[in-house]
Amino acid sequence: MENTYPSQLLEKAVCEFSKLPGIGRKTALRLVLDLLRRTEDEVDGFASAVTRLRKEVKHCRVCHNISDTDVCPICSDRRRDTTSICVVENIRDVMAVENTQQYNGLYHVLGGIISPMDGVGPSDIEIDSLVERVAAGGVKEVILALSSTMEGDTTNFYISRKLAAYDVVISVIARGISVGDELEYTDEVTLGRAILNRTTMTNKQ
Amino acid sequence: MENTYPSQLLEKAVCEFSKLPGIGRKTALRLVLDLLRRTEDEVDGFASAVTRLRKEVKHCRVCHNISDTDVCPICSDRRRDTTSICVVENIRDVMAVENTQQYNGLYHVLGGIISPMDGVGPSDIEIDSLVERVAAGGVKEVILALSSTMEGDTTNFYISRKLAAYDVVISVIARGISVGDELEYTDEVTLGRAILNRTTMTNKQ
Repeated sequence: MENTYPSQLLEKAVCEFSKLPGIGRKTALRLVLDLLRRTEDEVDGFASAVTRLRKEVKHCRVCHNISDTDVCPICSDRRRDTTSICVVENIRDVMAVENTQQYNGLYHVLGGIISPMDGVGPSDIEIDSLVERVAAGGVKEVILALSSTMEGDTTNFYISRKLAAYDVVISVIARGISVGDELEYTDEVTLGRAILNRTTMTNKQ
Repeated sequence: MENTYPSQLLEKAVCEFSKLPGIGRKTALRLVLDLLRRTEDEVDGFASAVTRLRKEVKHCRVCHNISDTDVCPICSDRRRDTTSICVVENIRDVMAVENTQQYNGLYHVLGGIISPMDGVGPSDIEIDSLVERVAAGGVKEVILALSSTMEGDTTNFYISRKLAAYDVVISVIARGISVGDELEYTDEVTLGRAILNRTTMTNKQ
């Protein structure tokens, strides 16, 4: 496919699109040809949305979520419970937790997860600023909502050690079988954890 | 998912990406967040590749393939056989035929296919200019390489009628079972056509 582009401009655009995650050259070509069918204004709108986002978007100075303002809408929302901080890896996780509508506290976006394999250590992610937030007082609970992976567990452990000196409850989101899952198709590690972390029926809502 | 974007700029960019074919809001968000992790120069490069393509790309005035120049590299290539024109629906089809390395003639890109359901009639696609090319002389064969659909068949029929007056061979690419296909899984229409259009073994290469 490489040498058959009839136009250098087309090849360049396809090349740029295929740098995006999960987009191969065939998909990139389809997307680029779709853009080519639009008006110049529409294409300018597409391009400027991307460049403006990159140039103008900020990170909330409290929780590091992305935001149009210095402090993000969640951190500046007075209706939210400021005594609770939910620690997540990235802003997609913030959106995932928000979508559950089960949480009304604040967030702390680490911007990554401790992963020695990828060269990401504790100082590369926003752990110090989390400790500062807790040290500043007013926080009663830190909820660790990281992925259920080796890296997630490592990061959970590191954060819990860092916060051990403070008078704050540290909790981890429950691991168990997914809602709707059938037992026989659940992997044994998950099922084992679900048995260990069983809840008594009277506690159930 | 709609109301939980922490930033208007993010939402705008996600919205623009999700207008692309086959890209939903979740994928759009993943692509946008990937762009957000790059340098400003890289994002500018991405955006300018798209806008430059839209502004500067031309269509070959002979075959209507897209091109950086007035006449595309294929039409201006002296090594190609100018007596043969392969008629295709769009430039992706040109690239598909080129990739086979089985064809050394010229192309004619219709820019669509006759489809009354979608309001596309013969005058909406580049049929008149094809007739002009044939009328100008020098063409011995017109190969119709359109999709094997109702619309493709209609367009084939229309073009063959339009070219009936000229001394030119009109051929249609072979329809049959795909290479590697097993007979029992081939649909009956395709298999029926393959039997009707059988070739004698001595003709086989």
